[in-house]
Amino acid sequence: MEYPHSFEELVECFKMLPGIGTKGAERLVYHVLSMDFEQVERFSDALLNLKKNIHYCQKCGHICEGDICEICQDSTRDQTTICVVESPKDVFAMEKLKEYHGLYHVLHGTISIMDGKTIDDLNIQSLFDRLNENIKEVIIATNPTRDGETTALFLAKLLAKQNIPASRIANGLPMGSNLDYADELTLLKSLEGRKKL
Amino acid sequence: MEYPHSFEELVECFKMLPGIGTKGAERLVYHVLSMDFEQVERFSDALLNLKKNIHYCQKCGHICEGDICEICQDSTRDQTTICVVESPKDVFAMEKLKEYHGLYHVLHGTISIMDGKTIDDLNIQSLFDRLNENIKEVIIATNPTRDGETTALFLAKLLAKQNIPASRIANGLPMGSNLDYADELTLLKSLEGRKKL
Repeated sequence: MEYPHSFEELVECFKMLPGIGTKGAERLVYHVLSMDFEQVERFSDALLNLKKNIHYCQKCGHICEGDICEICQDSTRDQTTICVVESPKDVFAMEKLKEYHGLYHVLHGTISIMDGKTIDDLNIQSLFDRLNENIKEVIIATNPTRDGETTALFLAKLLAKQNIPASRIANGLPMGSNLDYADELTLLKSLEGRKKL
Repeated sequence: MEYPHSFEELVECFKMLPGIGTKGAERLVYHVLSMDFEQVERFSDALLNLKKNIHYCQKCGHICEGDICEICQDSTRDQTTICVVESPKDVFAMEKLKEYHGLYHVLHGTISIMDGKTIDDLNIQSLFDRLNENIKEVIIATNPTRDGETTALFLAKLLAKQNIPASRIANGLPMGSNLDYADELTLLKSLEGRKKL
């Protein structure tokens, strides 16, 4: 016995999302079945509206509802510093700090040998278009993963060619952690990056 | 800094689904952002079509695209046996066996003290409406969980009042398992339910 077509179709759709397999998708579809029609309509509209309303900022690549994001539009922000991140999530994480007041640039990914992604697959040309003599620092804040580090090194080289000062966020022990639970690489980075007191 | 409204709205919608929290929902929304518009449109349509096209069978409560499901419509099936299950998933699980050829009745849940669900919240009146002198056996196949067992006992009592023969699926060690890994209750049920060879 097979699932009805409309059921199977929604299972396939849920399976397009990351981390959702057949069993998980079926569970979600059963839940949608038990929801009110109004709720499902709201969900259906929300999906379309996301794609209709949310765009990537033409300047920095961050998500926004217009052409240019509110950060790029904000002239009170420090226009001389650009923080380069992998994804819009990272912009929200940085903004939560309320410590960084410069601009951002979202790469939308990293170089990845495994996934066959090169520098050309990233939102990088628009970064170089933004660089001029006014830019005093580019902070490279890609994740400290294999791909993130590769991208950071590559980017640093490109920036050095143009004489743009670049920096990399620090690696080390996370606050509140224990030395004896830290992995070796983190501990090594922590030692290498030690500061004078 | 806050997420754009359309973003936040879809996060809220994903959070209506079971097992999806704020972080998980945000991750899914970022993925939807990276999907093609056609794919998102398909997803959006699939949600609506599910609610529009899939109904519960008026006879047994199973899911179907018409008023009466294909199992209830199939006159070649054994009309004297009804297998009572908790949800449509269970019908599909039973049908996979290709061993059971009777009818089904889907309760859509169980009695649950924790969730404040009583027998009146289940699709049970329509079960009793179906019972007549032709029914030779009602197999109670709710899950062997606390709530499933409670429901089975309750149902068995109601059926006994009407002199309808009821049976319960067997509990015991799952095939391929190890005695020393089995929990005590399962082992006890397995011993109690032993059969002569």
